[in-house]
Amino acid sequence: MTGKLLRLYPLPSQEVSAIYEDLELPPRERRDDTRPYVIVNMVSSLDGKVAIEGKASRLGSQTDHQAMRTLRSKAGAVMIGAGTLRAEKLSLGLDDPAGRQPLAVIATNSGDIPLESNLIVGGGQEVLVITTEDAPDAFADGLPGRRTAVLRVPSSPSGSKDLGEALRILKAEHAVDLLVVEGGPSLNHSLISQNLADELFLTLAPKLLGGTTEEVLTVLKGGALEAEDINLLSAYLAGDELFLRYGLRSLEPEN
Amino acid sequence: MTGKLLRLYPLPSQEVSAIYEDLELPPRERRDDTRPYVIVNMVSSLDGKVAIEGKASRLGSQTDHQAMRTLRSKAGAVMIGAGTLRAEKLSLGLDDPAGRQPLAVIATNSGDIPLESNLIVGGGQEVLVITTEDAPDAFADGLPGRRTAVLRVPSSPSGSKDLGEALRILKAEHAVDLLVVEGGPSLNHSLISQNLADELFLTLAPKLLGGTTEEVLTVLKGGALEAEDINLLSAYLAGDELFLRYGLRSLEPEN
Repeated sequence: MTGKLLRLYPLPSQEVSAIYEDLELPPRERRDDTRPYVIVNMVSSLDGKVAIEGKASRLGSQTDHQAMRTLRSKAGAVMIGAGTLRAEKLSLGLDDPAGRQPLAVIATNSGDIPLESNLIVGGGQEVLVITTEDAPDAFADGLPGRRTAVLRVPSSPSGSKDLGEALRILKAEHAVDLLVVEGGPSLNHSLISQNLADELFLTLAPKLLGGTTEEVLTVLKGGALEAEDINLLSAYLAGDELFLRYGLRSLEPEN
Repeated sequence: MTGKLLRLYPLPSQEVSAIYEDLELPPRERRDDTRPYVIVNMVSSLDGKVAIEGKASRLGSQTDHQAMRTLRSKAGAVMIGAGTLRAEKLSLGLDDPAGRQPLAVIATNSGDIPLESNLIVGGGQEVLVITTEDAPDAFADGLPGRRTAVLRVPSSPSGSKDLGEALRILKAEHAVDLLVVEGGPSLNHSLISQNLADELFLTLAPKLLGGTTEEVLTVLKGGALEAEDINLLSAYLAGDELFLRYGLRSLEPEN
């Protein structure tokens, strides 16, 4: 990171050496035997956009990338939706190829996931594709080799994956205590609207991106949610970039 | 307001009694003889949405409403786009009917502005409608009475109002030193993309709203902007709601 890193909240404000490193995740009192503790980690512009020309990676600073790695280092698994993988080449792992790697989890309804071209898999990282029981068999045949497994879960009435069941299996069969979710907006929305997300880590990049309604991506895409207040747990500032941590209360879909 | 109001930044953090009241606007060194100093004041959810079912007024807290009134109290004029007025009944004034009122400015290309039904005009407040030279004459005939004036400015090549010219006239003929802009997203974008906005006051409401791409409004709607970094000038916290003030550097449209 460059420049000073300031913790603004909780008080007193103080200069600190790193962000989120001292965080205990899952919090001791919030451990759950039935599913992982789920944190959603996103970076947004001031005008609520989470991607530049479809790519999220260009939005955050080096400090944001370091915060992302810190959160990943505490996680048993890192999950994204297939759309996020289709948008750009990315890694869901950590830099040290010899170190422990979180399980890379890709959630897909369609099965259209360019694993070979877009997922950078480091060291001994394993990959789990979560899809529905209805997904075509042929799709699994197209996945690259040895370290990729497929988890089929029932469909919800809307035709998407039963994420609650997927989380139970991540806990029971893969011993995932902490799951970091890094978008996209539809996956975030599915988890939050079903009360399956515990925290939102929101980096507010000091940028304005604009964009027309048709092309913009925001943190959440899906049905309207009840506008309940949620809790700010901490705020850090590095340069002009804010790092906000929110505890999500139960958010019920409106209908 | 309810509960404690904390200034987080600049340091040291401290408890304060009010937000933005001690602010000198325009800043002494930024006074300009040719146009008003322009601040954009918006409230957004954490997922970047600026309206609930089309209405912005439900998003902010009482503290946010107080901050809005404080900024208006320093302004010679308060401006919104016609779409914002069409969305809900609102006032651009201050509570004290006997006090000085800022000029209420409505910017419209179409002339479709429900002034009589949706604009609450308090005390001696005057109203100025800014539109293009091409707008039909009939439109002005439909405006209510005595306190409403129409300012016609040239069209830009894209067919929208020349906002630079409108600002020059607000300064020269209406002595507006400070203009507060309260959306919507298209008007914000027009001003910011033309380097006509000096600051962004962004209230970050601790809510997640969701919504599908077609229906959401964010702080800015228009062409993509260069993602230059902009400066955080201050941050306050009341409850879980953050009040952020940013200085806007020149933002050029990307093309």
